[in-house]
Amino acid sequence: MPSCSSVVQTGIGVFFEYDTPRIVHIRSKKVGIINRFIQLCIIAYVIGYAIVWKKGYQEFGSIQSAVTTKLKGIATVNTTLHPNIQEIWDVADYVVPPQENNAFFVVTNLIVTPNQTIDSCPEDSEVPGARCNSTSDCPAGSSLPTGNGIFTGECSPNGTCEVRAWCPVESGKLKAPNPALLEASKRFTVFIKNNIEFPKFNVKRRNILEFYNDSIFSTCRFSHDDAINKYCPIFELDYIVSSIGESYSDMAAQGGVIQISIEWNCNFDLSEDECLPVYEFRRLDSSQFKISKGYNFRYARYYKEGDREYRTLYKAYGIKFILSVTGQAGKFNLVPLLTNVGSGLALLSIATILCDIAVLYLLKYRHFYKKKKYLDVYGDDAYKV
Amino acid sequence: MPSCSSVVQTGIGVFFEYDTPRIVHIRSKKVGIINRFIQLCIIAYVIGYAIVWKKGYQEFGSIQSAVTTKLKGIATVNTTLHPNIQEIWDVADYVVPPQENNAFFVVTNLIVTPNQTIDSCPEDSEVPGARCNSTSDCPAGSSLPTGNGIFTGECSPNGTCEVRAWCPVESGKLKAPNPALLEASKRFTVFIKNNIEFPKFNVKRRNILEFYNDSIFSTCRFSHDDAINKYCPIFELDYIVSSIGESYSDMAAQGGVIQISIEWNCNFDLSEDECLPVYEFRRLDSSQFKISKGYNFRYARYYKEGDREYRTLYKAYGIKFILSVTGQAGKFNLVPLLTNVGSGLALLSIATILCDIAVLYLLKYRHFYKKKKYLDVYGDDAYKV
Amino acid sequence: MPSCSSVVQTGIGVFFEYDTPRIVHIRSKKVGIINRFIQLCIIAYVIGYAIVWKKGYQEFGSIQSAVTTKLKGIATVNTTLHPNIQEIWDVADYVVPPQENNAFFVVTNLIVTPNQTIDSCPEDSEVPGARCNSTSDCPAGSSLPTGNGIFTGECSPNGTCEVRAWCPVESGKLKAPNPALLEASKRFTVFIKNNIEFPKFNVKRRNILEFYNDSIFSTCRFSHDDAINKYCPIFELDYIVSSIGESYSDMAAQGGVIQISIEWNCNFDLSEDECLPVYEFRRLDSSQFKISKGYNFRYARYYKEGDREYRTLYKAYGIKFILSVTGQAGKFNLVPLLTNVGSGLALLSIATILCDIAVLYLLKYRHFYKKKKYLDVYGDDAYKV
Repeated sequence: MPSCSSVVQTGIGVFFEYDTPRIVHIRSKKVGIINRFIQLCIIAYVIGYAIVWKKGYQEFGSIQSAVTTKLKGIATVNTTLHPNIQEIWDVADYVVPPQENNAFFVVTNLIVTPNQTIDSCPEDSEVPGARCNSTSDCPAGSSLPTGNGIFTGECSPNGTCEVRAWCPVESGKLKAPNPALLEASKRFTVFIKNNIEFPKFNVKRRNILEFYNDSIFSTCRFSHDDAINKYCPIFELDYIVSSIGESYSDMAAQGGVIQISIEWNCNFDLSEDECLPVYEFRRLDSSQFKISKGYNFRYARYYKEGDREYRTLYKAYGIKFILSVTGQAGKFNLVPLLTNVGSGLALLSIATILCDIAVLYLLKYRHFYKKKKYLDVYGDDAYKV
Repeated sequence: MPSCSSVVQTGIGVFFEYDTPRIVHIRSKKVGIINRFIQLCIIAYVIGYAIVWKKGYQEFGSIQSAVTTKLKGIATVNTTLHPNIQEIWDVADYVVPPQENNAFFVVTNLIVTPNQTIDSCPEDSEVPGARCNSTSDCPAGSSLPTGNGIFTGECSPNGTCEVRAWCPVESGKLKAPNPALLEASKRFTVFIKNNIEFPKFNVKRRNILEFYNDSIFSTCRFSHDDAINKYCPIFELDYIVSSIGESYSDMAAQGGVIQISIEWNCNFDLSEDECLPVYEFRRLDSSQFKISKGYNFRYARYYKEGDREYRTLYKAYGIKFILSVTGQAGKFNLVPLLTNVGSGLALLSIATILCDIAVLYLLKYRHFYKKKKYLDVYGDDAYKV
Repeated sequence: MPSCSSVVQTGIGVFFEYDTPRIVHIRSKKVGIINRFIQLCIIAYVIGYAIVWKKGYQEFGSIQSAVTTKLKGIATVNTTLHPNIQEIWDVADYVVPPQENNAFFVVTNLIVTPNQTIDSCPEDSEVPGARCNSTSDCPAGSSLPTGNGIFTGECSPNGTCEVRAWCPVESGKLKAPNPALLEASKRFTVFIKNNIEFPKFNVKRRNILEFYNDSIFSTCRFSHDDAINKYCPIFELDYIVSSIGESYSDMAAQGGVIQISIEWNCNFDLSEDECLPVYEFRRLDSSQFKISKGYNFRYARYYKEGDREYRTLYKAYGIKFILSVTGQAGKFNLVPLLTNVGSGLALLSIATILCDIAVLYLLKYRHFYKKKKYLDVYGDDAYKV
């Protein structure tokens, strides 16, 4: 008789249906408490951790950054002790190369070999394998792994092979002076300009706060502990090194690598003005290692006199500062909130699973509960039963 | 009696079982419509957004990139107005340092202090604290934060402290010339070569398309709006700056930082030939700021005459271009597709939860539905009931 | 009568409740086997893949890295064939700029134009558009896209426009010498010092292993195939290039870009000493391309004689090595383990869904099962039925 309506039900009717699981609603103190406690933990986790603490109600945007640096300071070398070395070092001298991307290097110590010209001269006696007794020890055209030139085939009078090289060769006997020649670099300051942008939120910020002006700039120095100076973008090199527990004298003598990280963690649900940088320093090499400590490299200045080219070779020890800018900004958005609420609801089923274990396997009345929860159906030959 | 079979059931039988929830199948237009509508939204979201739009059927691979750049162009300085400054600037002069990793810098403006030598001379009168009335204002050995040298202890006749420095010192009175000395740099071009690789898919591409040859290279210029030239890897500096709404004259005078981002979003379900770069420009500093605008640094060229070393100091203003290459490639893969379908199915339970709320708490016949859905069982002392 | 208790139940009683779905427990071999098989697949996936293979029981920390490099080696240029070129090239000459961040460049080939000074001279005849018949072909003040200077307005006697430029201009006829002038650079070695830190786990490591000392350093060379030398941080340039199937001679002649990637995948559930670097090389440009192959740039050395400034222009071909350090460290942590187990449990519901499809739509007794699983309830006018 209701054949007509049943046709409708299987036809259009299918759109007006809705399935919901049948539930055993158990009123039991023991299990109820377990259930509520687990649910509470899950809800606390979802709301407290995933949504509030991890800001699960925000969508996040990544950072675009540009950093430029400007160093200030002058160092003098005692030319009485070191007659060959340039007396005054200013920013154009001690920043090598003059600009880098996200990094800068400050010369702090030097071994200088002036007036080198391409010629034949004895190899440095400190180079392993440079000593000779006769010309047969110095095969022409070969060179030593750590040598300064190519053997001419002669054994020079001072007992080392003669080489074709920039002569005179740098002496391996010279060690990095200690204290460092430019230890005065500890008073150098670096002005770090960091412009950032969160393209997703169309917000531009920089590490020079609005209330700074030129007169503050000439006096302020960054300090972690000071409520205002922790936003001062001018850093004394000594402060950077000391604040991470390193000795400036040691670093200046041998060189090293320091990371200056600038972190921007911004919450645009609050005022943009609270989007402020946090600076952190970290030594990236280690002073603990025994071999090949520090950081140095060689460069030269080239001169000409008539047709004769000569150069001054600098073995420069110094501190390499690497600037890394990281950050994230968040702003309220419905999508991540719903996703987190949704996965929180899914987690709630864990409470049911754990309670089921208690109810069906542990409690005294487990058989009773089992009978209520389960409807046993026998297999393929069901009708037979 | 079926004790034997029940042993089997709990023994091997456990492998031939299967649990499925019991369901109340409700035929109701009101709730059915709500249910189907929510399901539709979820399915639309999963298929439309997560799978089709976000390409949830693809696995993704990250990019490896190398960028090299080559600048072309010549600028002349009017030596009648600026007699101390080098007349012709070519690529070896205005790219400082001559090569960088993922960046290049073009000198656009200059303050030049020629013929400096290390000596004693009066400090620049613009330096705060440089003025003196007597030698007591100039304690020997000290220096000023923004000074050019170390006090000798003398007060020079022109009323500033005498310093040991590269003399004569750069004059603080000199401002960056406006218009910029090398404003002709606006016509410079940069040829950007970008080779990329998606190691996961073993695909190599580059931004020089196959149909380009040397003759096209000598004439084509990048343009966002042109169907062909938007793949031309030769960029006029003026175009880069103008296309982001900045004035080249202003940037050239004060310097600045611009990001050239190259994005490769490739879909290897389509032809590899459709894997093409998209260029975007962005000014990373801002012309809006009042203090410490622009970008400049100092470098020097060193000369020698006999034993006397001297240098020409350049305060170089210019535009720093930072190249950033980002990209992603996708290709059909079953694993992410299944993951997305799976999490889509899980989301469908949200429809049930929402309908349950309607059915059990809002509808007129809620008590009837409740009775059908729930089987009430009374607690620990269940048997007593 | 139980009105009091029912008040309690809806009041405090709500805390002592617990809902669990009612289940049809079907004992059927066919469906049971399907069910168990799917469950097995899912458990194998979760335990085998997500937890064991992907280390789902670990939390991961990212890497902080500093790389510095030091090159060694001397190359000679045959000055009989190339009289204008500097005879001996050492590290201060061939590394340009002398230090870079995460990269280094080695000059391998050269085109040198010595003794350039700013003057008027004929444009290079190879520059397209440089040839002239009369002064009208050379409008004063204009320049050619690939030219070396600014037209003076004269047509020089040799048939090209006269330009104001660094004269004499570099000759476009000169091709990069082949074999490369500094092909001896193949024997150069680079010592890569890589200090890393996993801040989350407070572990510092470096690529110089504890058992290395200075005497091993002077002899060891990196080799992929050798159990010990694959940790030697000294690399011969030729080895790097050859091991990726490239010809050093070709690369040296035209230049190129090579990535040296250092990967640290560490498992701190094991000993820290097993946290070791893996080196990989990859050519980032391609030798297959027909146009604009290789890598070169121009730089200059500046000299002065009295007031006359001149320079030597170097077109330097060479290999740019880009260092990229990546890595991840993992350590056992309960949170990711629980997350993975949880999402594994959720996946198990897929088995039920698939079995439901079989049971309700495919099996012979589907109507029987359907009746057991579903309780049909008729619509909004439910009471009427």
